[in-house]
Amino acid sequence: MKIVAFGEVMMRMMPPHYKTLTQAHTLEFLFTGTGMNVLSGLYQMGHESYLITRLPDHSVGKAASAQIRQLGIKDDYIYYGGNHIGIYFLEQGIGNRASQITYLNREESSFCQSQVSDYDFACLDGKDALHVCGISLAISDHLRDVVMAFVLEAKKRGMKVIFDCNFRSSLWSKEQNQIKEIYEKILSLSDIVFAGYKDATLLLQIDAPLNLSDEDKLKYVLQKMCKDYHIETIFGTIRGENTLSGYMVHDSDMIISPPIKLTVYDRVGGGDGFAAGAIHGYFSKMEPYELIRYATASGVLAHTTYGDSPILAKEVIQDFLEHGTSDIKR
Amino acid sequence: MKIVAFGEVMMRMMPPHYKTLTQAHTLEFLFTGTGMNVLSGLYQMGHESYLITRLPDHSVGKAASAQIRQLGIKDDYIYYGGNHIGIYFLEQGIGNRASQITYLNREESSFCQSQVSDYDFACLDGKDALHVCGISLAISDHLRDVVMAFVLEAKKRGMKVIFDCNFRSSLWSKEQNQIKEIYEKILSLSDIVFAGYKDATLLLQIDAPLNLSDEDKLKYVLQKMCKDYHIETIFGTIRGENTLSGYMVHDSDMIISPPIKLTVYDRVGGGDGFAAGAIHGYFSKMEPYELIRYATASGVLAHTTYGDSPILAKEVIQDFLEHGTSDIKR
Amino acid sequence: MKIVAFGEVMMRMMPPHYKTLTQAHTLEFLFTGTGMNVLSGLYQMGHESYLITRLPDHSVGKAASAQIRQLGIKDDYIYYGGNHIGIYFLEQGIGNRASQITYLNREESSFCQSQVSDYDFACLDGKDALHVCGISLAISDHLRDVVMAFVLEAKKRGMKVIFDCNFRSSLWSKEQNQIKEIYEKILSLSDIVFAGYKDATLLLQIDAPLNLSDEDKLKYVLQKMCKDYHIETIFGTIRGENTLSGYMVHDSDMIISPPIKLTVYDRVGGGDGFAAGAIHGYFSKMEPYELIRYATASGVLAHTTYGDSPILAKEVIQDFLEHGTSDIKR
Amino acid sequence: MKIVAFGEVMMRMMPPHYKTLTQAHTLEFLFTGTGMNVLSGLYQMGHESYLITRLPDHSVGKAASAQIRQLGIKDDYIYYGGNHIGIYFLEQGIGNRASQITYLNREESSFCQSQVSDYDFACLDGKDALHVCGISLAISDHLRDVVMAFVLEAKKRGMKVIFDCNFRSSLWSKEQNQIKEIYEKILSLSDIVFAGYKDATLLLQIDAPLNLSDEDKLKYVLQKMCKDYHIETIFGTIRGENTLSGYMVHDSDMIISPPIKLTVYDRVGGGDGFAAGAIHGYFSKMEPYELIRYATASGVLAHTTYGDSPILAKEVIQDFLEHGTSDIKR
Amino acid sequence: MKIVAFGEVMMRMMPPHYKTLTQAHTLEFLFTGTGMNVLSGLYQMGHESYLITRLPDHSVGKAASAQIRQLGIKDDYIYYGGNHIGIYFLEQGIGNRASQITYLNREESSFCQSQVSDYDFACLDGKDALHVCGISLAISDHLRDVVMAFVLEAKKRGMKVIFDCNFRSSLWSKEQNQIKEIYEKILSLSDIVFAGYKDATLLLQIDAPLNLSDEDKLKYVLQKMCKDYHIETIFGTIRGENTLSGYMVHDSDMIISPPIKLTVYDRVGGGDGFAAGAIHGYFSKMEPYELIRYATASGVLAHTTYGDSPILAKEVIQDFLEHGTSDIKR
Amino acid sequence: MKIVAFGEVMMRMMPPHYKTLTQAHTLEFLFTGTGMNVLSGLYQMGHESYLITRLPDHSVGKAASAQIRQLGIKDDYIYYGGNHIGIYFLEQGIGNRASQITYLNREESSFCQSQVSDYDFACLDGKDALHVCGISLAISDHLRDVVMAFVLEAKKRGMKVIFDCNFRSSLWSKEQNQIKEIYEKILSLSDIVFAGYKDATLLLQIDAPLNLSDEDKLKYVLQKMCKDYHIETIFGTIRGENTLSGYMVHDSDMIISPPIKLTVYDRVGGGDGFAAGAIHGYFSKMEPYELIRYATASGVLAHTTYGDSPILAKEVIQDFLEHGTSDIKR
Repeated sequence: MKIVAFGEVMMRMMPPHYKTLTQAHTLEFLFTGTGMNVLSGLYQMGHESYLITRLPDHSVGKAASAQIRQLGIKDDYIYYGGNHIGIYFLEQGIGNRASQITYLNREESSFCQSQVSDYDFACLDGKDALHVCGISLAISDHLRDVVMAFVLEAKKRGMKVIFDCNFRSSLWSKEQNQIKEIYEKILSLSDIVFAGYKDATLLLQIDAPLNLSDEDKLKYVLQKMCKDYHIETIFGTIRGENTLSGYMVHDSDMIISPPIKLTVYDRVGGGDGFAAGAIHGYFSKMEPYELIRYATASGVLAHTTYGDSPILAKEVIQDFLEHGTSDIKR
Repeated sequence: MKIVAFGEVMMRMMPPHYKTLTQAHTLEFLFTGTGMNVLSGLYQMGHESYLITRLPDHSVGKAASAQIRQLGIKDDYIYYGGNHIGIYFLEQGIGNRASQITYLNREESSFCQSQVSDYDFACLDGKDALHVCGISLAISDHLRDVVMAFVLEAKKRGMKVIFDCNFRSSLWSKEQNQIKEIYEKILSLSDIVFAGYKDATLLLQIDAPLNLSDEDKLKYVLQKMCKDYHIETIFGTIRGENTLSGYMVHDSDMIISPPIKLTVYDRVGGGDGFAAGAIHGYFSKMEPYELIRYATASGVLAHTTYGDSPILAKEVIQDFLEHGTSDIKR
Repeated sequence: MKIVAFGEVMMRMMPPHYKTLTQAHTLEFLFTGTGMNVLSGLYQMGHESYLITRLPDHSVGKAASAQIRQLGIKDDYIYYGGNHIGIYFLEQGIGNRASQITYLNREESSFCQSQVSDYDFACLDGKDALHVCGISLAISDHLRDVVMAFVLEAKKRGMKVIFDCNFRSSLWSKEQNQIKEIYEKILSLSDIVFAGYKDATLLLQIDAPLNLSDEDKLKYVLQKMCKDYHIETIFGTIRGENTLSGYMVHDSDMIISPPIKLTVYDRVGGGDGFAAGAIHGYFSKMEPYELIRYATASGVLAHTTYGDSPILAKEVIQDFLEHGTSDIKR
Repeated sequence: MKIVAFGEVMMRMMPPHYKTLTQAHTLEFLFTGTGMNVLSGLYQMGHESYLITRLPDHSVGKAASAQIRQLGIKDDYIYYGGNHIGIYFLEQGIGNRASQITYLNREESSFCQSQVSDYDFACLDGKDALHVCGISLAISDHLRDVVMAFVLEAKKRGMKVIFDCNFRSSLWSKEQNQIKEIYEKILSLSDIVFAGYKDATLLLQIDAPLNLSDEDKLKYVLQKMCKDYHIETIFGTIRGENTLSGYMVHDSDMIISPPIKLTVYDRVGGGDGFAAGAIHGYFSKMEPYELIRYATASGVLAHTTYGDSPILAKEVIQDFLEHGTSDIKR
Repeated sequence: MKIVAFGEVMMRMMPPHYKTLTQAHTLEFLFTGTGMNVLSGLYQMGHESYLITRLPDHSVGKAASAQIRQLGIKDDYIYYGGNHIGIYFLEQGIGNRASQITYLNREESSFCQSQVSDYDFACLDGKDALHVCGISLAISDHLRDVVMAFVLEAKKRGMKVIFDCNFRSSLWSKEQNQIKEIYEKILSLSDIVFAGYKDATLLLQIDAPLNLSDEDKLKYVLQKMCKDYHIETIFGTIRGENTLSGYMVHDSDMIISPPIKLTVYDRVGGGDGFAAGAIHGYFSKMEPYELIRYATASGVLAHTTYGDSPILAKEVIQDFLEHGTSDIKR
Repeated sequence: MKIVAFGEVMMRMMPPHYKTLTQAHTLEFLFTGTGMNVLSGLYQMGHESYLITRLPDHSVGKAASAQIRQLGIKDDYIYYGGNHIGIYFLEQGIGNRASQITYLNREESSFCQSQVSDYDFACLDGKDALHVCGISLAISDHLRDVVMAFVLEAKKRGMKVIFDCNFRSSLWSKEQNQIKEIYEKILSLSDIVFAGYKDATLLLQIDAPLNLSDEDKLKYVLQKMCKDYHIETIFGTIRGENTLSGYMVHDSDMIISPPIKLTVYDRVGGGDGFAAGAIHGYFSKMEPYELIRYATASGVLAHTTYGDSPILAKEVIQDFLEHGTSDIKR
């Protein structure tokens, strides 16, 4: 399949060896973003993947696009302009100490300052699906306009629209009911949605009957969400204590994978590993139970590799599903 | 509060990546010492902290004082002279393999060779507390004279004297009863003491009734120690299998914190993290139970950061106490 | 002497081993700024140095202040607020390939967004001199207001005002005559000024008689500048091909140092090394010729050390002046 | 232009910091090859570039293609099979000590073992030029068959054939006249050729009149070469002591660039930088003198960057041509 | 004792920090091989150890022999010739992700291409034991001839022959019964053999009675193996989930060590740690139970050190046996 | 030849990338010493080389002997005892900035504290030459006794005695005439001596006639030294500005090599490279002019490799002598 994603690219900077910033004198850096990460996973699973974004027109932007290509993502629709990029510092924790993420100024980035006129919708021609993310809705009115324009253009071309709710209240400067309205609009245009219990209950204010089990509550609210917004499939994950399971909801059904024990080497981007697996399973028409197991395994393994972008081939994921964790492969 | 510590600064050198010295070609180095570590923790908790020490009068001494300042400790009372510094190599173990510490010649260091005449007691003026450590008592007679002189000058000024027993028999070349005498003298001048069961029983020869539980034995001997030497408070920790708890003893009472699961990234200096937390709790007049929980959390978190010196802000410790271990903080 | 500087702190990030950003995966970072660099040099020369600045109130700001202290600069007057810091990437060139500096968004930094109300002028009490820099004049109207307020408060307290012209037209969004007016105002309040030929001719529009030699032209315009703005001393450097010489101008005189062969390891901050040397020479009342030779040597040696901040002790500079370049010192 | 290259990709491994292999414990690695390097340069100059090669079908091959994409080269025509790749170790010299290159087994590599049947000539459709290299002629009979097949297919499609003589006698196990025959065959099919004096005289046995100057001898033999084999243009470089100049020969003319002072940071691949510049100049129809100056500058700057592949944008080359070496660009 | 091993030396290359090859730009390298690893362990236990091998006659071979010496192994019998060495890439896994080993061309290495005439059997004179490994039997007929010749020469000299079965079917291009015949021949010449259940059942087709427990089956087949081929002792390990135990079989007995909890830092070479321990125990005439516990502890600790070669002194192993895992040794 | 050296092994620690200690957080370390360095060079030239020294009996001593073996030096005569080793910090300078060497306490090292009874003179049996160094004479009376004992034992066995004057006044706490006496004693027992003009004039107080040229003065004093102390050959080097030449003096002759341009990557140990070359030339009976050219080339190349110990094969030195500096060797 040919899949495009519209999304922000940020620069992640991490002190080595679990040091804090104050203790460090070097930083490991990479470029990351929800759309970019999902595309990286999809490339590994055999899809043609394209990122639409806007990068600063200087050496930082060039370095970002080089890494994007390196991951197997096509750079044909990367636009250059402005001179800033969002940066976050990741001070990796270990054991009892939590990881700490610190954002620098993001609003002034080339991407967050971009307008509809900075892009060319022809980049959607001939593609099968568009991936967008809730974070792009939050930053500013004009960026949200770009997202909505891309979604409408995708629908016009008969593409599947994939929307990752990714709701972070701290990024929004609007009132609750305005945000709900915005999400409702985009959900009603989306075919595949990544969402969780809180998105349904807190953001969309769907209430579950009190007497249900947690699983039945989840099923109730997500199925209602499917129906209310005409969503084909909702995907998401449940984190247990050191486990991950995935679910897949249609308006008539919910399939949950058995939980897989989670081992964490690099936490950030684990969710994008799940999303790539789910989208791949969807487009390769896996059986639901196989699909959700595959997507969960993809998410679990994405926690074991350096960086935010999933980089394991689908054969590695299949092997893990079949044989579990092993020692050494020769 | 304004807190000064008199203590040795050593240079710690560690092969990277759990290699042994024979396998390594580079060393990560830092400067460390009980007093310096406790002050580093106290700076993070909002106190003005000063180190009194003597460093070699060349680039190694300059590098040490730069790192001391970097940690937030004032270098106003660092004296320069001599040309040697104590060095220890830390070959970090992992899993079944223990860490190995190898000391090079320490006795000839600028600090261990220092005399009363190398210091100026005016540095105590206007300060609230003095921290000294049992290791400085062991090295040589003339260094012990310096410690005692500082302690007496501190008492003269009405400062609190904080004494960390830190008894290591391998450092002493005296007979048991001579050592006991020395410890008794300094304990009777101390307000706050860091000590454990063995210090009381082996060093000071306080026996606990045989029929008591371990906890009651501990309480018995430390309360006796409080009474015998007029100590206001004794602090210490108990290491379980993978857990740490802290205690606080007055002549009338002993409070023990619930054990916290211990995760270890860098073992050395964990005790100094506890000490910093306890001293901070004491001077900020925390309730006993709150105090001992805070100190224990400070000790536990000090095991999760690179280096011997505690470097986490008190907000991080509070957050850990309230919410336990978490994943990522944004 | 007690010297304070008001100035921006930026984060410098450099790919290792002369790689370009696209080739790199790690960055060496440090904190830098004209004021900070000059103070670092002055600390090495025996002065008490204080930085007034505003840093982001998160781990990046904490890391900056730790490095500031490490350099020997007092952090008593560092204010925290906002969440952004200016960043520049330095892709170090070698041989035929020039170094490339790329700035990210600087205007939104905690410093550049700061207001008079963010500072407390009491920090000037009891100090001997204030250092400010032309870059702070350029960023915004409100930041320029802060600079002017500090300068006026310093004059009120009888402090020497040191002004580094540091005119970079790319940073200004004003018309030429407006800029000239601003510079004239601050020059007339300054005692010691760092300025060059272009500052006098292009910015202040002082013309030199055409028939003079280059050196006499320089002398003419800078002496006129001294007179016009009642400046006590103007310092500056002349770059030959692989050499550096320094000058010192009073309204009656100009002293030029013999050129010193320049060897470059880390180019950025060389000028601040000269400035630190000149200010030290001024306050320690060196003879003019000795002063300008010392300042030039300080500038030359600052090109041979890693980082922007001068870090060599005045003994090293003196030794270089006396014995020239040598092989190994034991 | 759309340019394809058929060529080997090798793995280069280099001990850091000018160490010898015996002193090293880590290696910096990258992937390299004449075709790949030339395409990397052409990408920087705005061309669409495609590499045809065969890589091992395992993680080393995947790592190679990721770096190829990172450099801006399209990986559409990379074929996977076999399990070996040529490796060379580069022990970088400095000053009086020469760099030392050590090759491991190259003949068994996926590329050198490849056959015509491993490729699909459709990859040439719609492209403007094909680049091949003399090294591929030397390894084995079957690999030479592949080269010849590609060249013939390119001619069939009206593409320009670019041939880099790259004659290394150590790679050949044939007799001199057999090698000559092979070269003559491919030269007569080539439009643009990279060749030097020795190629003409030693390999092709063209003799220059004895009484000519060195430059006239070069002109004589290369013009004869143009005529004999119907070559449109021959390019090459002359290394002086610490200088480089380039030349461009037609059957009627030879243009030589003025020598440019050479500064070397990473020696390998400098010739490919010249080649990329020359090909770009050719296809963008630069004036001969401008072209050869540009190509030489491109070669000179390729000596100043890490790695074998040219990675500087054409703007950087232009700027160097116009302003010479400079200090820092902001 | 004086122990020689005949075996291959390979080059191991590993991306740092659990990165995949595609993510890496540096590789940590070392030299390794079953014989070399066993000798490294034996050196630590006080034996004189000599490696017989053939290395490429260039800087890679020189680097290998330097590391061999560094480990305490004598290089007197290293022969140089050819120009290739076997290489494997180790992409270290973590948690759920398995480590991945990728071999490059090994058959063309200086060792695997070596012939009887490349060696001098005089190197066996005066030695006590010879160690050979099943991998050397698999590569080629001529290499197998070398192994057999060494074994026969060792027997002639009354040396103990130690054979590590190390059967890896992927390395063989022969039929099952041919391989069996080869193994039978060498087993009948061996005194000490490292073998497991699969070697006995699959390779040698010894069947155990069905009604036995797993342990009794193991005992049955290995004792039969001892009898059939006149082997003095067979050693081997059993991996439980996160544990390791070792066994030692004579024709009359089998001793199994209690399982020790396994913690893994660097997995490769763990078996060689066990082998070194067993051989040391054998030659120092330890009691069987003590021997097998020591060998197992040696194997367990070999999992905790960087690299394939065991590098811990026998005192460290003894200490671990006596006191279990500890924290820090001072 | 079989050559033994008696000498100290120190630990050298160097901040990376020309940083000062204050700027560094890691150190590159290695082991070094005059004797060890000369032996390392002699191993490269084909000689059997043995170091006699005393190292601390812990992991630092083990690491030192591992590196000694790695360099090709036999460790048969390394004795273990004590727990300290001499350390020096090398802050590498660049350009105008000199390198700075800082010694920590050296007197208490296992070597400097060693006594005659710590060694076994049987280690000299069957060897051809003994190398000792003037530094060992300076440290203490008892160490000097060891040196003298070894020299006398060597003479007894008919070995050549090689003495490197290496006079550093800062290491001596004796009066000038006492030092002279000590040197005279050892010189009269030496066959080959490394000495310079200052050794002859300042230390031994040999005066040259005033009217001679510098070269003739050198010849005069060294020939007199040969005669006075019955020395067979004196070797030494003359440093010009960026050049090195070597000389060789008999009582009848002096041969000086043409100066070779010096390029410096790692300065320390350059003299030991010359010494190794001279000793090799001497024992392989090179013609005087060839010998001194070879020794000088060896010294020059030792300045271009990392570390103090010469590590280039004699073929590399020969190639440099024949072809001068070249670019790349393949």
